[in-house]
Formats: sequence, structure tokens, C-alpha cells
Amino acid sequence: MKSKPPSRRRFLKKGIALAGLAAAPAGLALTAPPANGQTVASGTADLNSIDAVLYGHRSRFVTTVRAIEGMSHPDKMPPRPNPYRPSARTPLGESIGIITPTSLHFTTQHFYGLPDINPTEHKLMLHGLVERPLVFTVDELKRLPPVSRIHFLECVGNRPSPNGKTVADTHGRTGCSEWTGVPLSLLLKEVGLKDGAKWIIAEGSDGGKHEKSIPLSKALDDVLVAYGQNGEPVRPDHGFPLRLIVPGFEGIYNVKWLRRLKVVDQPYLTFQEHSRFLGSNPKTQPDTYDFGPTSVITYPSGTHRLPVHGVYVISGLAWSGGGAVRRVEVSTDGGKTYKEADLSGPVLPKAHTRFVLPWKWEGEEAVLQSRCTDVKGQVQPTEAEFAKYWGLTRPQLYAAIQSQLGHCNWIQPWRVNRDGQVSNGLPPIGFVADMHAG
Amino acid sequence: MKSKPPSRRRFLKKGIALAGLAAAPAGLALTAPPANGQTVASGTADLNSIDAVLYGHRSRFVTTVRAIEGMSHPDKMPPRPNPYRPSARTPLGESIGIITPTSLHFTTQHFYGLPDINPTEHKLMLHGLVERPLVFTVDELKRLPPVSRIHFLECVGNRPSPNGKTVADTHGRTGCSEWTGVPLSLLLKEVGLKDGAKWIIAEGSDGGKHEKSIPLSKALDDVLVAYGQNGEPVRPDHGFPLRLIVPGFEGIYNVKWLRRLKVVDQPYLTFQEHSRFLGSNPKTQPDTYDFGPTSVITYPSGTHRLPVHGVYVISGLAWSGGGAVRRVEVSTDGGKTYKEADLSGPVLPKAHTRFVLPWKWEGEEAVLQSRCTDVKGQVQPTEAEFAKYWGLTRPQLYAAIQSQLGHCNWIQPWRVNRDGQVSNGLPPIGFVADMHAG
Repeated sequence: MKSKPPSRRRFLKKGIALAGLAAAPAGLALTAPPANGQTVASGTADLNSIDAVLYGHRSRFVTTVRAIEGMSHPDKMPPRPNPYRPSARTPLGESIGIITPTSLHFTTQHFYGLPDINPTEHKLMLHGLVERPLVFTVDELKRLPPVSRIHFLECVGNRPSPNGKTVADTHGRTGCSEWTGVPLSLLLKEVGLKDGAKWIIAEGSDGGKHEKSIPLSKALDDVLVAYGQNGEPVRPDHGFPLRLIVPGFEGIYNVKWLRRLKVVDQPYLTFQEHSRFLGSNPKTQPDTYDFGPTSVITYPSGTHRLPVHGVYVISGLAWSGGGAVRRVEVSTDGGKTYKEADLSGPVLPKAHTRFVLPWKWEGEEAVLQSRCTDVKGQVQPTEAEFAKYWGLTRPQLYAAIQSQLGHCNWIQPWRVNRDGQVSNGLPPIGFVADMHAG
Repeated sequence: MKSKPPSRRRFLKKGIALAGLAAAPAGLALTAPPANGQTVASGTADLNSIDAVLYGHRSRFVTTVRAIEGMSHPDKMPPRPNPYRPSARTPLGESIGIITPTSLHFTTQHFYGLPDINPTEHKLMLHGLVERPLVFTVDELKRLPPVSRIHFLECVGNRPSPNGKTVADTHGRTGCSEWTGVPLSLLLKEVGLKDGAKWIIAEGSDGGKHEKSIPLSKALDDVLVAYGQNGEPVRPDHGFPLRLIVPGFEGIYNVKWLRRLKVVDQPYLTFQEHSRFLGSNPKTQPDTYDFGPTSVITYPSGTHRLPVHGVYVISGLAWSGGGAVRRVEVSTDGGKTYKEADLSGPVLPKAHTRFVLPWKWEGEEAVLQSRCTDVKGQVQPTEAEFAKYWGLTRPQLYAAIQSQLGHCNWIQPWRVNRDGQVSNGLPPIGFVADMHAG
């Protein structure tokens, strides 16, 4: 959990002159700062309204929004959410730092509509193979010792795809928040486990009572019953008032609107359990449930355009279900050579980790991609390495995605054209379903 | 920058039975989870509206807001902001974890209204005692290697006061965010410092062109020209599009709407420079500018009420301009005895640090207070120790506040009455001006 020194040192060491920027030195009069595009809002305008003082707003010049899932067609404007599953992706192409703003954090719903829960009436039951079944109100849970941890969440539907236009298309089903709640291990200690207890079945309050089976070993490790996200109560689209946080596991394990935890002797084959025909890859991902090491360049990425020749900072996010990120390497030649990037913010276990690498672009074609290594030494594979491991051809690999191939953590390349336009660097492969599962 | 193990271990070690909670064991039918206070929102209701999918909302049951400054009277409802300085305090009494939601982060304005800046027209000028004056657009700054750091901000007006009813009244002028931006040292290296360069004058774009003098040594250390806060562009009330972040220094140094940095040979006595008649305390705070070690209990705190006898978790925030928090101790007997609290989240330099300590309350009178020690070994003083150091009587101490005594980091006690009502534990001293300066 260390923070590396500012990346400027490496930057300067590499001798890339800032003069390459469009910002040219100018002999300015000392007393004449540049004219700025500013008008002072009147005392009654929105920025200074009582509402904005009570609960702050974004600038009207900042209009980044989530990408809505389940549209009839991605190019259709305005986008219309599927009313049965109002899901949306994080706009990673405009992401900054490691914290995802809660309003922009991806959200996946499995059933009709969002539960609109009154927290004073909500309860969590722990029962099953336990000595003392207990029911907790939300206020009672808040009277137990909490912990706060910064962790990523990721939907298993997140994956590189030749058909994704933007990094939100390919990787937007991830986000990173500070989660605050009670360790599940504390609650399990209090109810007392009976002989034969091996699994936990977590149930949500949504229309279909979403359920997921979690191994007891994980439940006793770092799982949280969370009521806080980024310093405020968990939002309705993230599980208000209680969400199970299962760090490093697929998003679908992080049951929202949590109302029941049943201790049982074997996993349940619930409606949302996956039936992957491919298991996990023991080489890149030794644990069946933890996401393997992943990274993706968020700038520049698909649909971005480099406006001028000069110095840029390639920036992206890396994460792993196996723990902290140890190293990220960046290639500008499609993987022939790599340079180690700087980790420019907090480096925390099972959390998004920001990497940056300065790069001078002089108009040449380039293919940008990143490769993550985690503390376990697991290395993010290329698409070819991933396919080869499973003995699949490339078409077979992308066909497998449509049958819910999990943990597709291969490397995502972005192609920079001579005109500065950035697009997906994976060769086209025809239609690939944009499905997602959790 | 380590994270301590979940506090439950200490909790259980201390043998405080959860049975002390109101949540009593119950023999529940395994197939009958408790009725929850839930209605599924319709597909057209607010939670599932396109707006809420594009940019998420809070639950309608969560209504926490900032406390508006400059009201004619704190008890007046509804509160009316001073239209000239729409400032507001963080509602610390309902804080969770270490990140302050940006919408709830305190904000202090020095002049009329908030600048409503178009970022494509905004520029930052660096000039003065430099070899190459430079002007940067916001986009150009974003093309330089950024760093992301989680840091607290605090207004020098934050202080314990016998007249504060809530923890927002006494300490609500602090917040903690992930800030992303360009190290100022990188920009200074690029412009090239001339002989005699000793200070930086930072100027904002607000109505009064707020200015502050910053020692060059600090500017070359960890100061950022920030464009990101908690994963999105800095908000208008926090300085959109550019804010200077001066970690550990008084809030007033963190110039918002930054448009000019002038390198000079001596500090300017600007309109907002303080003329403290007391300097800093070399014992508790060796550096003149850095905030000393501070902490405050946020739950339970003034106006809270403990509903029943039983186990509670005393929770609060600690921070220091001197670096990371090393230790927080909590007393339930007004400082006669202390126990070491758990640090329950990330422990980062110059960042809010959450501490928790379980406590069994059986209806007795109690005085709760916390004491912070930072990595430099600096210890947060009591009110009496602070006054004694300066050779002041208690009335003289609180009179000094009205003359802008800075860095008032003494311990804030909260009194718990037999009926569970919590109030300020500092003895009344008559009128103390609720001034704040930066």
C-alpha cells in the first residue's frame, strides 16, 4: 500500500521536453494575466443557489455520463435504457485518478426496476447452519466495528472485443470505490457456524431475489456487508441500503439490496449461477473466482483523437483480483517492446491502479497496449496467448464469449492512425454479442 | 501507507459481546426472511429514469446536506446562505470512511459568487522570476504526467469551540478527496527558476482575485495544479477547472479557479494574508504552515442521541499536516484514561484517517474525546495544554480566536448524558464569534 514518488521524476529522467507541447513560451507582461473565459455567476444563478450550496453540483461544462446498456442500437440517439434492466457503463475514456464517481460507476441490474427501500424498515437475516440465527436492522449493523476499503468491482461481461468502439464499450463494466461496512466474518462469528458449514447463499431484495453462492473461506476472509460507498450511503443503483462486497470476485457476487445470508453445506445452482463451458485459466488466474490481472489504456483510447504532434501521457487503469498491482508495462508498437509505466496514485489491493507513461507522437502509426503483473506474479495475457492456452482458434474464442466465457483479461490494443484518430486495435471478427452477465 | 487488519479482531479480543446490541437472537423459520420496507420503483419512476441511469442519484431516504455558513442565526429555518459568500460545512456527524463526497465537501468563498468558467477558454500563466514564462490551457496541463493523491483540506477557521452544537459546527470545515493534477515542481522546472526566486504568489479567478503566498520549498515539494477531484473534474465550488492543492497547509493556500502563478523574491501581504498575533506552536506544530495533529469524534457527537444501552462504536477522523497519522487514542472519561483505537481504513499522508473503538454504554455519564499522534511524534494538545503553552487564560484563548488565532488543534470533548443525549463537552464561555478565514 505504498504510493510511488511523483511520476515527473521518471518523466524528466526520460528527457522528454515539454517544449514538444503546443504550449509555447511567450513573453508576457508580468501584470497582464491572460483573458479567461469566465463570467461570474450571479447570486441567484444555479451555482449559487441554495440547492447547490446544500449539495454541490458539477460545472455545466462537464457533461460526462454513463453509457446506457440494453439500447436497441448503440448508434441510436438519444440512447434509451432497457426499462427492465436499467444498466450502464463507467465512462472510462474520461476517467481521472482511481476513484470512480458514484454517479458514473457502472451498474448492472438483473431484474425489473430498482428496489426503492426504506432503510428504517430493511433487515438482514443470517441463518442456516448457524447456532444463533440473527436479524439485524441497518442501524444495528452501523453499531458494529466497520472497516473501509478501496476496491474495484467488475462485471464478468467486461472484456476486450474487436467490436468495441470505446474503452467504455470494452471495459466500462468496472469501477472503484471506498466501501465501508462490517466484515462478514464478524457476523458469522456472532451467529456461530455449525459443522458442515461450507457455503453462504446471499440473497438480494430485487424483483427476482437475486442469489449467489460464496465459498465460506472467502466469506471469512475479506467480504464486507457494506452500507457506505465513497463517503455516503450506498446509492440505490449500487444496492442501498446494504450490499455484499466480495473483493476481487466477479461483480455478480456483490449482491445488492442484501437481505439474507444463509449458511449451507454446498453451493446452490441459482438462477444467476454461470455454467461456463470453460473454467478458469490456472496459469493466468490460479483461483477460480478471483479476477486475473487486467489493465486497459483509457487515454488515448477508441474514438479519441490526438489533436497535434507532440508529447502525450498514455494513461490507464490496472487491477487484479489476486491483490495489488505490482507493475504495468506499456507498448506503443503493438507489443513488440514494452516500457514500465509509473503508478501515479495509491497502489492498494484489489483496487484500480492508475498508470501513466509519457509518449512523444510525431504522426506515425502506433498500437498502444498495456500489460499488468500483480503481486502474485500473474501476468495479463495477449489475446493469442489466451486462445492458445485453451486450444481455441480466434473465431472459437469469440464464439466462446457468447457462451459466457468468464474472466477475459487479455490485452486490449488501441490503434493510432496518422491523422491522430484512435480506434480498436483488435482485428475485426464480425458480430460479437455485447452480452454481459454480472 | 499500510492498512491495518479489520478492527473486528481487536473488538473480539476485547470480549465485548454483540449480545449487548438490541439485535437479539431469534428463532426464525429458514424460509421466511423478514419483511423488508421495500417497494419496487416503477420503470418510469425517478430511480429508473434516463437521467438517473446516465448520472446516478442518492436514495430519496438519504437527505444529508452541507451546513450553510453565514446564516443570520443557526436555528433559523430554512437556512439562508450569505449571497456574497455561499460557503458550507461538511456534515461530519454523518460521515462514513475517509472520502468526503464532493457534493458534501466544505466550501469557503472569499468573494461574491462562484466563477462560472468555460474550461476551453481558461488559461494558467507562470511568470515572474523565471527564464521562460509559459501559459497553459487546461488541455495542455492534462497532457503532462499527473499524480493522484488522497489529501485533506481544512479551513484555518476549523476549531473546537464551546459554542458549537455539532461536529459540523466545530470541525465541518474539512474534507478529504482524491486530487489529480500536475506536480507544480514539474511546471517550475519547465519555466526555469531565476536567482532570488523564493516565493510563489498564486492568484484565483474569483471576483477579488484571491492571492496567497507560498514558500518555494513547499511549491517544489508536493503541491499540485489539480484538475480532478474524486475521479471527475474539480467542481465549481472547489475551483473548476484548476485548483492549487497545497497538502497539509491551511485551506486558504489551496487557491481555487487558479489562473496565475508568479515567482517572486518575498511573500506578498495580500488582502487575505493573516496577521496572527500568535505564531505557531513549535512544540505541537514545528512547521509554521502545516496543520498540527488533529482528531475529532464524529459519532457519537453533539446532538446525537444514544437510543439504548449497549455496545456502540466510537468513530472519528484524525489528520495532520505533518504526514500520516500514527496513532489515535480515545477516552470515555474526559481524558483520565485512553485506549488505542483501530485505524479502520487506508492510512495515507496528510489524509483523513478513520478511527474506531467499540464501547459499551450502560447509561453512565461519559465524556468522549480523541487524541492524535502523527508520524513526526507530534501529539494533539488539550485546550488547557494549548492555553498554558501560550500563557493565556481560557477567556484569553477564546478571545484570541476572534483575532484569528490559527491552528487551533486542541481536543474536542463530547458529553454523554444519562439519557443518551450528546452535547459539547467544553464548558460554556459566552459568545465566541463563528468566524472563519480560509
